[in-house]
Amino acid sequence: MTYTLSKSELEEIYNFALDLGRRAGQILIEGVDKRTGEASGRGDNVEVEKVNAVDIVTQTDLDVEAFVKDEITKKYPSHSFIGEETYSSGSSKEYLIKDDPTWCVDPLDGTVNYTHLFPMFCVSIALVLNGMPVVGVIYQPMLDTTYSAYTGGGAWQDDSHPLKPRRPLPYITNPTSPLPPNAPSGCIFACEWGKDRRGDTPTSALSKKVTSFLNLASELNSRDGKGGMAHGIRSLGSATLDLAYVATGAFDIWWEGGCWEWDVAAGICILREAGGLVTTANPPADWETCRVPEVVLGGRLYLAIRPAGGGKGESGREGQERVVREVWKRVETLEYGRPGFEVKMK
Amino acid sequence: MTYTLSKSELEEIYNFALDLGRRAGQILIEGVDKRTGEASGRGDNVEVEKVNAVDIVTQTDLDVEAFVKDEITKKYPSHSFIGEETYSSGSSKEYLIKDDPTWCVDPLDGTVNYTHLFPMFCVSIALVLNGMPVVGVIYQPMLDTTYSAYTGGGAWQDDSHPLKPRRPLPYITNPTSPLPPNAPSGCIFACEWGKDRRGDTPTSALSKKVTSFLNLASELNSRDGKGGMAHGIRSLGSATLDLAYVATGAFDIWWEGGCWEWDVAAGICILREAGGLVTTANPPADWETCRVPEVVLGGRLYLAIRPAGGGKGESGREGQERVVREVWKRVETLEYGRPGFEVKMK
Repeated sequence: MTYTLSKSELEEIYNFALDLGRRAGQILIEGVDKRTGEASGRGDNVEVEKVNAVDIVTQTDLDVEAFVKDEITKKYPSHSFIGEETYSSGSSKEYLIKDDPTWCVDPLDGTVNYTHLFPMFCVSIALVLNGMPVVGVIYQPMLDTTYSAYTGGGAWQDDSHPLKPRRPLPYITNPTSPLPPNAPSGCIFACEWGKDRRGDTPTSALSKKVTSFLNLASELNSRDGKGGMAHGIRSLGSATLDLAYVATGAFDIWWEGGCWEWDVAAGICILREAGGLVTTANPPADWETCRVPEVVLGGRLYLAIRPAGGGKGESGREGQERVVREVWKRVETLEYGRPGFEVKMK
Repeated sequence: MTYTLSKSELEEIYNFALDLGRRAGQILIEGVDKRTGEASGRGDNVEVEKVNAVDIVTQTDLDVEAFVKDEITKKYPSHSFIGEETYSSGSSKEYLIKDDPTWCVDPLDGTVNYTHLFPMFCVSIALVLNGMPVVGVIYQPMLDTTYSAYTGGGAWQDDSHPLKPRRPLPYITNPTSPLPPNAPSGCIFACEWGKDRRGDTPTSALSKKVTSFLNLASELNSRDGKGGMAHGIRSLGSATLDLAYVATGAFDIWWEGGCWEWDVAAGICILREAGGLVTTANPPADWETCRVPEVVLGGRLYLAIRPAGGGKGESGREGQERVVREVWKRVETLEYGRPGFEVKMK
């Protein structure tokens, strides 16, 4: 069955999620303070360092998810909830989101960055309805930056913070820049190395990813025509923030396989609302001519293109689809199945 | 001849450079505002978009360098000055820094990021004396963050900004964490793809870099023993900020060839003052046993290791040297010569 939420209901949920994201981020910052000794007075407390950093991170991750789940359950008891931590502690890897209102939460995306205190980590909170995220909030606590959207409400950086006024996404909106004529040349390509590190196996995710990165980076028309001469190759270590930076327009292309719905749900909502396109990472057989499919939330394969204006005889959407095909032409096919789930392209 | 500056002279120069970095960063932000229409009222002024983004970036880069050079010349007329823009407009690629006090400035590091409005760009200002940077200031204007140091004065994030109190670098200082026992496993490895994009030539910088990245990333002991299983691989697109994040302790290892003295001078000062180690990227013939050489500022080959405490029978410095050798074991030799310059390892 199809569920509906009115615009005012969505707006209320959005404001709740924005506040929740900031409060959850505060718990992450408290975890940072424990590790730097900030809260207890620098230099006075050697005790804090005796606690293993990884233990603090794991506990903070669980604490944030418990906090977010508890707040949502109190406010919206009829809604379902999927969080990274509760999901991962179960044995199945099935896709569990149905059509009813379901919160999809990553309490801490960019865990390695958080462990090392590199600021590129965040809280990701989304509400999914009928298979698509309709509210998305990403909060980057170490930089005190929010990215957020709800369907029909626009996409925004920052919120009501007195010193950081809301600004619409993408940054350059008047008009939004067209994608470069010979993209991926002129584009920033964002990608991640991931956790599968079998560097000796040509069919491993790592080998296929690095071959694809190298194609995108190499001189135009080198590597049997696959060279893309991307303007820059960036790896932040957070799928969620990669999507946020595609929504701002800073990154032009993000291509990734293997992440999960809680990594991308909020980012997909924000990017789509900003005018971006999200589809599958893997080139379909008829990639040159096929219709560009909508992203499948649980598909674990994602290709995102930034918001773009039209120019030189093509619309913004046509430019985005052109860049999708230019990426598909250059990337390897990744294998990330999951039990009981078949990617249905709509 | 050897020049000397007293601690109070250095401190005065440091305070001048800190203020100068923030003022230079403000010019970069004005360039951002021109492109997003922020200053002229969003939505009212289509005019700003008619100016090519690349023209604005190039002009801003030149404006910032002219401003910084002018301020330095007024304040310290006897000091020499090397800036990226003035250097690049000349024909020679010789190393020009002598022993006398010389300012070494990159008005905009991370130009591609600046063009795309990704916040990882910065101003880099250093004073070099007798071949080594003794004052370093990095200012990241879009995040309003400063990294700074002078020899003997400590390394710091942020300065007198009312909402951002100074904090010492590295973040975790009490005690500073030891490097992981089986590093590069457990480490964040920062690297950049660079501008040489010959992906079909096995001897190109790109091929050698990607082989090295893949070695560092792959499972321990795979790839003929070169697999390093780094915890994360990060590419920000700014050599200067890579060094800043090594100084904070967020990144454990940064390995790079091909950048220039203005990209690294401020970062080297800050990292060394924070307790980090900087040496050459290329493994010496006797890499397993040789003395780890001090970095050569103009050598265009850099390997940086974060500040580290001692642990399990080794000092912090011993741990850093262990990690240097673990990196040397896994990387290819890069070729970045320059006319009239021979890397003399001290």
